[in-house]
Amino acid sequence: MKCFEFLLPSREKKPRKKGFTMVLDKGLGLKTAKSLMEISGEYIDFLKFGWGTIIVHDKEIIKRKIEMYKSFEITPYTGGTLFEIAYINNKVPEFFKESKEIGFEAIEISDGSTDMTKNEKLNFISEAKEKGFYVLSEVGKKDPEADASITMEKRIELVNAELKAGSDMVIIEAREGGKNIGIYDEKGNAKEEEVDYLLRHVPKEKIIWEAPNKDQQVYFILKLGKETNLGNISTDDITSLETIRRGLRGDTINKIK
Amino acid sequence: MKCFEFLLPSREKKPRKKGFTMVLDKGLGLKTAKSLMEISGEYIDFLKFGWGTIIVHDKEIIKRKIEMYKSFEITPYTGGTLFEIAYINNKVPEFFKESKEIGFEAIEISDGSTDMTKNEKLNFISEAKEKGFYVLSEVGKKDPEADASITMEKRIELVNAELKAGSDMVIIEAREGGKNIGIYDEKGNAKEEEVDYLLRHVPKEKIIWEAPNKDQQVYFILKLGKETNLGNISTDDITSLETIRRGLRGDTINKIK
Amino acid sequence: MKCFEFLLPSREKKPRKKGFTMVLDKGLGLKTAKSLMEISGEYIDFLKFGWGTIIVHDKEIIKRKIEMYKSFEITPYTGGTLFEIAYINNKVPEFFKESKEIGFEAIEISDGSTDMTKNEKLNFISEAKEKGFYVLSEVGKKDPEADASITMEKRIELVNAELKAGSDMVIIEAREGGKNIGIYDEKGNAKEEEVDYLLRHVPKEKIIWEAPNKDQQVYFILKLGKETNLGNISTDDITSLETIRRGLRGDTINKIK
Repeated sequence: MKCFEFLLPSREKKPRKKGFTMVLDKGLGLKTAKSLMEISGEYIDFLKFGWGTIIVHDKEIIKRKIEMYKSFEITPYTGGTLFEIAYINNKVPEFFKESKEIGFEAIEISDGSTDMTKNEKLNFISEAKEKGFYVLSEVGKKDPEADASITMEKRIELVNAELKAGSDMVIIEAREGGKNIGIYDEKGNAKEEEVDYLLRHVPKEKIIWEAPNKDQQVYFILKLGKETNLGNISTDDITSLETIRRGLRGDTINKIK
Repeated sequence: MKCFEFLLPSREKKPRKKGFTMVLDKGLGLKTAKSLMEISGEYIDFLKFGWGTIIVHDKEIIKRKIEMYKSFEITPYTGGTLFEIAYINNKVPEFFKESKEIGFEAIEISDGSTDMTKNEKLNFISEAKEKGFYVLSEVGKKDPEADASITMEKRIELVNAELKAGSDMVIIEAREGGKNIGIYDEKGNAKEEEVDYLLRHVPKEKIIWEAPNKDQQVYFILKLGKETNLGNISTDDITSLETIRRGLRGDTINKIK
Repeated sequence: MKCFEFLLPSREKKPRKKGFTMVLDKGLGLKTAKSLMEISGEYIDFLKFGWGTIIVHDKEIIKRKIEMYKSFEITPYTGGTLFEIAYINNKVPEFFKESKEIGFEAIEISDGSTDMTKNEKLNFISEAKEKGFYVLSEVGKKDPEADASITMEKRIELVNAELKAGSDMVIIEAREGGKNIGIYDEKGNAKEEEVDYLLRHVPKEKIIWEAPNKDQQVYFILKLGKETNLGNISTDDITSLETIRRGLRGDTINKIK
């Protein structure tokens, strides 16, 4: 039962079909993460272990974090950079194997920091699907210059090809900072025209928009509604995002249908 | 007993009559919050459950958080936006009732996101007082444009009318960000003239200045002394603020009487 | 054993001789800090209790935090401002005494907020060494204007004199913010020429560069290698820094030898 439940607007419930929230864990302690899940875990659908962070962590602690997140009906998954590091080291089979062994049922396939060909990426997506993983793939480059060189046409082509190859969801890259990358300008403002163009050519229910900053979250929720899929949410902002979705924060009060 | 107690300058002790610190909780886990209170709870007077955050939280956890904060002699209270959501939904009586039931002895009355009339707001303040609540009211709008349209004369009139209607303290709005709102310009710098003008016409001991950023905290403490009332302090900055007050951080060392 | 250990590039192990990470604790709760150390404590060499924070904290809690950090083979130490406050109050002997009593084996000697003479500072460094402390000393002023008035020649002279007087490590000041101070411009970018000039005249293995922002950490690691000594790392960024050092984050992937 909620506090002031008579004031709570409805929202999709878990397991959600839309309105996903994907959170970025960049190295929380197990007990701290658990304390946070107890209060706000129900608002998280996907939990990304950021980039290669878990490579430097103790395997037993990570296993316990994975289990803990699952106990809150959250799907924990490996950051795309982890897959890319495996790719660079010619260890993709070992990566698939250990991901499964330590409990991951979902993984991310990206090429933000590497030069794999489009076909290679699509094959990895298909392979991951065949191995039984839920697959999130990411479109965009980590380096702003490299990222800027991808035309909108190319971005759309990639999104659709990855979905066809088996991706369950496609993530639009914005990193932890959310500035000067992908659909965001140097100040972190969304480029409306590009977002609209993208929306006309891809199935929006399959897109997770990385939106690390509050203004970006407000932007997408006001534009696309409370059940928009948003990602790279900081662990500090889980509750805030849920209140923005429901019109319970100044920015969206009275503005959510 | 403190560390290096021979270096500790004096400060008001709880229950304080001045030098209040109001902290913004935007969804901390119970155990994490308790761990933080154990080390720095004695420096917090008011703890605001930010905007509508508690509406999305489990009632039992919130009850335990309220109780926990009280055990550290902190007054937890409901964010103003929560009251406004009740107002929009015509549920103010239910809001008063549940606030009391789950343990709140203080509430905030604001109109930052709604168009209630001045008289309506004053009546709610009086009503809350009659019901036995400690009342904090807030002056200012969440939307920068709407906020900018309030003249200084109007702000002063509102502060004084709210105090007369029964507010125990009046909060000067600055949100979580502290930029381009109320007394702060786009860079978050205080507009000295406006602050001075305000100070000449309101009882400063009844004012809590929202000052989420360090430079704002330093500004008010250097201007008004260590026993200034400051609010919207991040949970990360509780100890830092106390050291700024006492001249134990580079910014104010040797500058506090 | 690590996760995906076959992807983990090597790094200096504790007790490290180089590649130090110095973290800034500005008032974490004991349990929260312990939870964080359990997952990432092995990547921290020095833990600074920031400025005068511990003066406002309960002695028993601080003793337990010191002990806890030591149990993870981390060297906790007192922030330089704490020493300076003792200096201003003519209580340096009492400061040395209590530091030892509560368990500190390392201390920082700085003059960022005070006008002690060069000789005074050198004498304090020697005295601390004689008392058996591991000594970190800091070069730079907290106030940007005062700091800007120190020429590069002077900075180099100070670093070398302090090492000669007994400092084990010298810290290059950048505060918690890392902007408009020392080697950083207003945007927080390192001034390459000054860094290079400094590097030509001081032993770089004895330097800890304060680098609170991610771009600064990336800058030094790409310039000086993964075993660079970096300081004022936020408790939120411990794991991130370790991944940057090892080429496990987008910013340094494929760029670390």
